[in-house]
Amino acid sequence: MSPTSSGRPAKPATILDVAAAAGVSRQTVTRAMNGMPGIKETTRERVQELARELGYTPSRFAKGLVQGSRTSVGLAIPDLTNPYFPAFASSVVELATQRGWHVVVDDYGHGGRTGLDAVDHLAPQVDAIIGYLGGYADQAQAALGRRPLIVLDETPGGAAGSINFDYAHAARLAVDHLWNANRRNIAYLDASDYRRRAPGPAPENPVRQGSADERDPAPSPDGVRGSITVRGRAVAGRLDQTGASWSLFAAEETADAARAAATALLQERPGTDGILVFNDLMAAGVLKAVADAGLRVPEDCAVVGMDGIPLGELLTPELSTLALDLREVGRAAVELLDGLLTGAVAPGSKDARLTLQHQLILRSSA
Amino acid sequence: MSPTSSGRPAKPATILDVAAAAGVSRQTVTRAMNGMPGIKETTRERVQELARELGYTPSRFAKGLVQGSRTSVGLAIPDLTNPYFPAFASSVVELATQRGWHVVVDDYGHGGRTGLDAVDHLAPQVDAIIGYLGGYADQAQAALGRRPLIVLDETPGGAAGSINFDYAHAARLAVDHLWNANRRNIAYLDASDYRRRAPGPAPENPVRQGSADERDPAPSPDGVRGSITVRGRAVAGRLDQTGASWSLFAAEETADAARAAATALLQERPGTDGILVFNDLMAAGVLKAVADAGLRVPEDCAVVGMDGIPLGELLTPELSTLALDLREVGRAAVELLDGLLTGAVAPGSKDARLTLQHQLILRSSA
Repeated sequence: MSPTSSGRPAKPATILDVAAAAGVSRQTVTRAMNGMPGIKETTRERVQELARELGYTPSRFAKGLVQGSRTSVGLAIPDLTNPYFPAFASSVVELATQRGWHVVVDDYGHGGRTGLDAVDHLAPQVDAIIGYLGGYADQAQAALGRRPLIVLDETPGGAAGSINFDYAHAARLAVDHLWNANRRNIAYLDASDYRRRAPGPAPENPVRQGSADERDPAPSPDGVRGSITVRGRAVAGRLDQTGASWSLFAAEETADAARAAATALLQERPGTDGILVFNDLMAAGVLKAVADAGLRVPEDCAVVGMDGIPLGELLTPELSTLALDLREVGRAAVELLDGLLTGAVAPGSKDARLTLQHQLILRSSA
Repeated sequence: MSPTSSGRPAKPATILDVAAAAGVSRQTVTRAMNGMPGIKETTRERVQELARELGYTPSRFAKGLVQGSRTSVGLAIPDLTNPYFPAFASSVVELATQRGWHVVVDDYGHGGRTGLDAVDHLAPQVDAIIGYLGGYADQAQAALGRRPLIVLDETPGGAAGSINFDYAHAARLAVDHLWNANRRNIAYLDASDYRRRAPGPAPENPVRQGSADERDPAPSPDGVRGSITVRGRAVAGRLDQTGASWSLFAAEETADAARAAATALLQERPGTDGILVFNDLMAAGVLKAVADAGLRVPEDCAVVGMDGIPLGELLTPELSTLALDLREVGRAAVELLDGLLTGAVAPGSKDARLTLQHQLILRSSA
């Protein structure tokens, strides 16, 4: 018998599976997994490696004792200071709690940690992981063995489940809204540091600026050279289709950085009459920059964010945005995980690959 | 030998401590803790109870195997949708990560869970807990045994460490600022649901309304009868000292509820010229209500929040607030925990009882 992680059996591995795979007794597995004496070092290493491969960990003992057999879900997110992530996390926690599951959150975006570090830490404690890992789907699923991983907003690879967003649809909604409101000098503010935090779907296209025909790499207004995000590619594609001139610029993913970048853009391209923004937090900074420039929103310059977090309604003017219903995203993740845990949904199957769409919520800023 | 949790020895309990306390072999402890056969049920229960009391859990095995001996800290917070808590959590995670510690976050404010539920869940996985538990300091420390608990914003009781805030100082700063700006019809908007989420420091005083001499319980403008929070008591105390008329009202701890309550207040008491608010999130709703009423902030009515979260700077007008430096709060918690873990600070000692002060940050709203 040669166990592999690609077989994707529906039932979680037991101590007996590990014992059979290693050709040792159940007692030897217990000794190996608990660091107890009385077995050879090579045996211990082999058992631990097979246990990892099969998705069996000794924490199942402790969990059974201390918490009963309550399902424990790890949630890996890159940044609690971007209000999107706590809003998403809260939605998952609420819906998981309704099922009697418990969720532990790992905010991994500090000290050079990656989504894979978060998975490595959570793995011994949980039955499954949901996460914005930023491009580690394959390695993270391998670390979890048979236990399901659901990744969001990245190429799913070998992850048991995935949730992606239809950015082409979102871009169409926002660009067409601005175009139909006679905006002809549109700018898109991308996140310059998104790749650092989320090395996921490789940004292939260079930053573009100027008319849709300028295909060569060019520095953005604030001097950033770099690659465009998946969201940016979708917006760029739709802007190209309008045939009009448009520009693309980038800033770090904070309100302050977005404010500074938008201030520079409005000085350099004073005719800008519409700005699409990578996310709502950055859009809050853009609203400030437009006001700083003495311009009215939306009369002189419309602003559209992306995410649909509660922050948007607290801003002045209230932010129009490409909104995800975060309760629906949380529900989709929790229901998909339920299906994967019960075996109703096969890992990697069509049913385990979800694509959600944004809605354009028009408030006051566009 | 009679082990107790009140002895507070500095070193964490080992498997040998449990074996000695129970009068059994080390192997029996392992069997008891891992749910293995071969021992009597009564022995298993006794060993588990002693292990709990001594703060020893079998997850230490698993942790040593999978993560090395990295310090793992649990962080219990009641609500990720109030931006204060992710901001605080992010600060703790960042500073703990710098020390090589790992933090797992438990957002317990769903499905009727309490701070104690969060501690019970985190306990088997962590070496220490930091949390806004809302009044379970004693029980939570007991559940952790010798491992340190640091509670914030509640009566510390038996918790190894505590961080409290000097609300009398904060109230003095804000009330005096408004008074010196000739505000004579001040209102305080309290959180009506704070006790439900945080049963901690018992609110003793009834909600008051009208002049400082009205000591009898009275319904607040939105019909809420209830008890005043610790923050509210501090503000009420300072408002009383002014000798002027003031009012107290309450709303659930969301921006929307605060907006509705402030709208009702401004209709009922149109001369209100200053509003102090329980926290910044609620203050965002109050800013909207004042604008809805056709009043200018701060000319017609000043607004002061409390917390100092980044949200305040994104609002229009930018929010004046009683700010905690959240990096300093995070640093205080992490440094205190370091002291408790190394033994440099004795649990429950004067050095383990910190009180931090707010600063009044004046932006545009007051």
